[in-house]
Amino acid sequence: MKITITAFERSPDGGMGLARDTRVRWALEEAGQPYAVRPVSFAAMKQPAHLALHPFGQIPTYEEGGLALFETGAIVFHIASRYPGLLPDDADARARAITWIFAALNTVEPPILELATAKFAEGDKPWSKERLPLIADRIRHRLGQLSAHLGDVEWLDGTFSAGDLMMASVLLRVRPSGILDEFPRLAAYVARAEARPAYQRAFADQLAFNTRSPTGG
Amino acid sequence: MKITITAFERSPDGGMGLARDTRVRWALEEAGQPYAVRPVSFAAMKQPAHLALHPFGQIPTYEEGGLALFETGAIVFHIASRYPGLLPDDADARARAITWIFAALNTVEPPILELATAKFAEGDKPWSKERLPLIADRIRHRLGQLSAHLGDVEWLDGTFSAGDLMMASVLLRVRPSGILDEFPRLAAYVARAEARPAYQRAFADQLAFNTRSPTGG
Repeated sequence: MKITITAFERSPDGGMGLARDTRVRWALEEAGQPYAVRPVSFAAMKQPAHLALHPFGQIPTYEEGGLALFETGAIVFHIASRYPGLLPDDADARARAITWIFAALNTVEPPILELATAKFAEGDKPWSKERLPLIADRIRHRLGQLSAHLGDVEWLDGTFSAGDLMMASVLLRVRPSGILDEFPRLAAYVARAEARPAYQRAFADQLAFNTRSPTGG
Repeated sequence: MKITITAFERSPDGGMGLARDTRVRWALEEAGQPYAVRPVSFAAMKQPAHLALHPFGQIPTYEEGGLALFETGAIVFHIASRYPGLLPDDADARARAITWIFAALNTVEPPILELATAKFAEGDKPWSKERLPLIADRIRHRLGQLSAHLGDVEWLDGTFSAGDLMMASVLLRVRPSGILDEFPRLAAYVARAEARPAYQRAFADQLAFNTRSPTGG
């Protein structure tokens, strides 16, 4: 069945790959599934047509036949459940891989998003400069724990899984701050993830999408 | 197989049910599965034995035979996948219910946790008083969208699911602030969830656990 996802009409990052549609594109590439991308403007995101697909007015969404999903974690999990390549067959290993999807989104990403909020939503506030180092230290605390757990293995639990896809995606968001490179094992882990052909295709496609000419093409 | 979860030796909330083991207890009650609870002190949470179970040194964890999981969302999802009662059988309805688990944890809970961080980790900072209303407004924005989506139906997508369990659990965290009651539909939704016998049992058990006498019992 034809898969259609939504993405920002123009990603605010200009194609750095940090918008969340990249995570879904990557999962679809790992699963070898073709898909179409429908751009949504910031104005359209707040309109009833889009809110019917995504109650919180965000991207990405996922449509496949009669099924409509939102929330990146849920979409990546759905792709990983439905198609081979992103979750192990063994039930216990599968549960552990799914655990890493949740850990990436619920334990590692929150302080990283707090840093973004502090910069963009509160960057003009008098406390901004003093708060940023506090948040950076919360990120370092989590990355230190993650690095200790990862040790010298290649992926979080055996073979590459949707858990690694999500964790690497979350870590990519903090790389521009310089904090990722303070943790060489994690920086190398992200580099291994980026080197995957499926990520390369997803990244190239989102870059082309976000830099396409306004008259189409 | 015997299920063992971990919980705070004494929950900082004194048994209000806001610690995350309550979410797991509730899921196990909905699924009709007996379980044991192992208390973990704050000191023990940072020790190698617990870090081997939970790389980020938190509770709850979940052990069942040879399987060890951490991260509340992953544990609730595992229980919902393994036992009947928390996810619909229809594949599309199931994917939508899972979407609400992720939406509760990744879209609705983050500003609620930010409020907690602002109060407890930054409560002594000079900006605390001015920041709290900003965060409260971020929570209101999300709850307004959720309330609009819920409308006058009983549960988020058809019958009660693990998605409702997680969403109600997240909303319970914000009730002490008074913000939940600004959204009568959501307050009624939470009250419906709390009225479920499985929630009542889970709440009573965590209360008894957190108020037990220090000499055992």
